[in-house]
Amino acid sequence: MPGKLVLIRHGQSTWNLENLFTGWVDVDLTDQGLAEARAAGRLLKTEGFAFDLAFTSVLKRAIRTLWVILDEMDLMWLPVERSWRLNERHYGALQGLDKAQTVHKHGAEQVKLWRRSYDVPPPPLPIDDPRHPRFERRYASLPPQELPAAESLKTTLDRVLPYWNSRLAPELAAGRNVLVVAHGNSLRALVKMLDGMSDTDIVEFNIPTGVPIHYELDDALKPVSRRFLGDPEAIKAAADAVAKQTETKK
Amino acid sequence: MPGKLVLIRHGQSTWNLENLFTGWVDVDLTDQGLAEARAAGRLLKTEGFAFDLAFTSVLKRAIRTLWVILDEMDLMWLPVERSWRLNERHYGALQGLDKAQTVHKHGAEQVKLWRRSYDVPPPPLPIDDPRHPRFERRYASLPPQELPAAESLKTTLDRVLPYWNSRLAPELAAGRNVLVVAHGNSLRALVKMLDGMSDTDIVEFNIPTGVPIHYELDDALKPVSRRFLGDPEAIKAAADAVAKQTETKK
Repeated sequence: MPGKLVLIRHGQSTWNLENLFTGWVDVDLTDQGLAEARAAGRLLKTEGFAFDLAFTSVLKRAIRTLWVILDEMDLMWLPVERSWRLNERHYGALQGLDKAQTVHKHGAEQVKLWRRSYDVPPPPLPIDDPRHPRFERRYASLPPQELPAAESLKTTLDRVLPYWNSRLAPELAAGRNVLVVAHGNSLRALVKMLDGMSDTDIVEFNIPTGVPIHYELDDALKPVSRRFLGDPEAIKAAADAVAKQTETKK
Repeated sequence: MPGKLVLIRHGQSTWNLENLFTGWVDVDLTDQGLAEARAAGRLLKTEGFAFDLAFTSVLKRAIRTLWVILDEMDLMWLPVERSWRLNERHYGALQGLDKAQTVHKHGAEQVKLWRRSYDVPPPPLPIDDPRHPRFERRYASLPPQELPAAESLKTTLDRVLPYWNSRLAPELAAGRNVLVVAHGNSLRALVKMLDGMSDTDIVEFNIPTGVPIHYELDDALKPVSRRFLGDPEAIKAAADAVAKQTETKK
């Protein structure tokens, strides 16, 4: 029987709070984000989850969320694998810009296209921009042509799915229980693939922060069930909060 | 050119403070232990170390020390590999006993033999003792005959050295800078092997907690230099504190 799969989106980050496009910028959790992570860890412990290994991105808001969860569950000894393939979608030249100001400047329709179309990437970072990932030591061992300067949800999927196939699926198939702590769009990629969602449905599917999503899988690693763990009201509030992030502020 | 090697012994643990034999018991750091880890991380950052990967044990006092160091150095993205082969020496049936009381009960000579002989193990845990590692989930994937019920420094070396050969040496030979956060006796095993120390010298060699030990290696991975990083007075005080742990208290 395959192992259990739990997906968790990292808790609130400083740039979530400041309403900036983040992407691959390595910002940390806020106090609320830490509290979300602790609550997720306690919930998983209460529900009796016993993981065998964990996967996360190379971005600290996901890694710290995982650390807090492992600490709460007394599972600090668990093997952890970090991969850039679980990173957030690269937001290109939008990274660091205020979401509401970007709406004022480019219009709600254009920003919605960048944020919520399936295959339209935002404007890319120029190849010589010092913010381009090829200048960061954490990506230095990767072939430069693999590194994105901007991603759509579609191209995010293109780099998440090989990781599912090569690393996550074999562990699950071997019966190991797997925890994945990642980002809104790398998790959307996994959810779309697992649930066979359409391109239009997945872009409207908001993943709440800090809420464990538990998949039970059959022998073909197709979902038998998917459920969000925790209080339904709190989960809805968290998903609504994410959906509202481009609304212009007063 | 081979990579740089830095070894660090975890900061003070709760049972260091309470003067209990710890071994494989999974106790946490004290506030002082956390402060030692932070200081080590800041020192490594100030000295400009740029690690490529890190290794630690499956015990939380080492893992948390590593986490704090990675956090201070802004290297949370670094690949980390945990292995039971870097665990502290298994102290057998002495685990959980007070060091000074054990001296009162068995005599200073017997305890010195258990603590400081090269090849005399302490009394083993019975195979059906619920504290035997075969009952712990973190060791469940290992062949039960590999799991010790008590270790001498010699048998600790016997299980550390294959890990050096299979995992650490190849990374260093490939030019990668390696950080190892482990325990008094698993680090003694590495130091003995690297520096070619005699059985009698290594048992008298006290590794201070939280002090980075930097090795420069030649192409055969033999040490060109070894130095302790930081303030020499503080290092001596830390080593002396470790040496005094079996002195009986008033």
